[in-house]
Amino acid sequence: MNDFATTEKTRLRRAHERGHFDRETVYAILDAGMICHLGYVVDGTPYVTPTIYWREDDRVYWHGSTASRMLRQQETGSPVCLTVSHLDGLVMARSGMHHSANYRSVMLLGKPEPITDEAEGKRQLELFIEQRFPGRWDELREMTAQEFKATRILVMKIDEVSAKVRTGGPIDDDEDYALPIWAGVLPLRTVVDPPIPDPRNLDGVVEPANIAAFQLG
Amino acid sequence: MNDFATTEKTRLRRAHERGHFDRETVYAILDAGMICHLGYVVDGTPYVTPTIYWREDDRVYWHGSTASRMLRQQETGSPVCLTVSHLDGLVMARSGMHHSANYRSVMLLGKPEPITDEAEGKRQLELFIEQRFPGRWDELREMTAQEFKATRILVMKIDEVSAKVRTGGPIDDDEDYALPIWAGVLPLRTVVDPPIPDPRNLDGVVEPANIAAFQLG
Repeated sequence: MNDFATTEKTRLRRAHERGHFDRETVYAILDAGMICHLGYVVDGTPYVTPTIYWREDDRVYWHGSTASRMLRQQETGSPVCLTVSHLDGLVMARSGMHHSANYRSVMLLGKPEPITDEAEGKRQLELFIEQRFPGRWDELREMTAQEFKATRILVMKIDEVSAKVRTGGPIDDDEDYALPIWAGVLPLRTVVDPPIPDPRNLDGVVEPANIAAFQLG
Repeated sequence: MNDFATTEKTRLRRAHERGHFDRETVYAILDAGMICHLGYVVDGTPYVTPTIYWREDDRVYWHGSTASRMLRQQETGSPVCLTVSHLDGLVMARSGMHHSANYRSVMLLGKPEPITDEAEGKRQLELFIEQRFPGRWDELREMTAQEFKATRILVMKIDEVSAKVRTGGPIDDDEDYALPIWAGVLPLRTVVDPPIPDPRNLDGVVEPANIAAFQLG
């Protein structure tokens, strides 16, 4: 897989060793998450909205109600920044200065477009569910035409993008390693707790395997 | 504690029942996190950068290197959006349409300012460590004047702000409750795994209680 080209907007000014521009790293970070933070501008003011997204090949997708002010704003051809981040740990050094965080993040710039083709829109909604819960789409009550009309899906090409990754322990000043101060990493992780069935599930309805198998990260 | 006033920028257009404007809710969501997503605008393009933050009273703080392009941009009096979100669960309904997410989020708009008073800057860095790891500041190698000079701290008042919260199970269409489809919630949670000591810790250096006690969320 070829690398993404860096641009004036995506090249790293500092800590270059943390920058990654290969598809494998970018895709892995995107696929490890479900919530992105979407930045967009209205009358000069930036807004950042947490939104569920998914990826297919070199495109990311998000959706919402056709009544959503955010989605209507975003499909006007104005620029959007989609950021995904995973906080993997707190890096505890021997000085305050060298405390840090382990993380994986992707920042993607672009101009989203609405999906106007009905077949493609339906395929994307199915894909969104099926990627996370294989088999669930067919278990669900079928989508109505009314529901599809009320749903807006946006797509943005993965093109102008950068990833940043920090891993490992603290990096202290040479002389500080002689000090009797505890240093190390506090690892952080998102876990899925046991599913909570809806009290209104019918008798005899059992938890599908695709629910039990769900993982994140 | 008094509520925050809603503005044209922070009032919710839809799902009003999810909106919260009381200080208790806003502060609790901020205090449950460590990473915010900062939105800012450069030449009309929005950027969203994950950043560690902390709160004292009605102000949020973040910091970085004086060489940071982001921080220099943000302190020019241009507007910033600081968003914090916690994904608490996936809400699995009987139709694709009513799938949802449980979450807590805060969106804060404002114009950050740099902290120029040296004593206040040092007090804030100490507070940042002490809030999460009580006692650690005094355990660390003392901050040098050089390090302090290389650190920029920004502060933003919590004033124009909204919180959004969704909790609970799926809300399906009435007739769909008769269908034999599994519905429920997949709870998500961030956990702290056992600390990984730096291999270069001196013999006899034990893990402090403030490390073992650290929790998030």
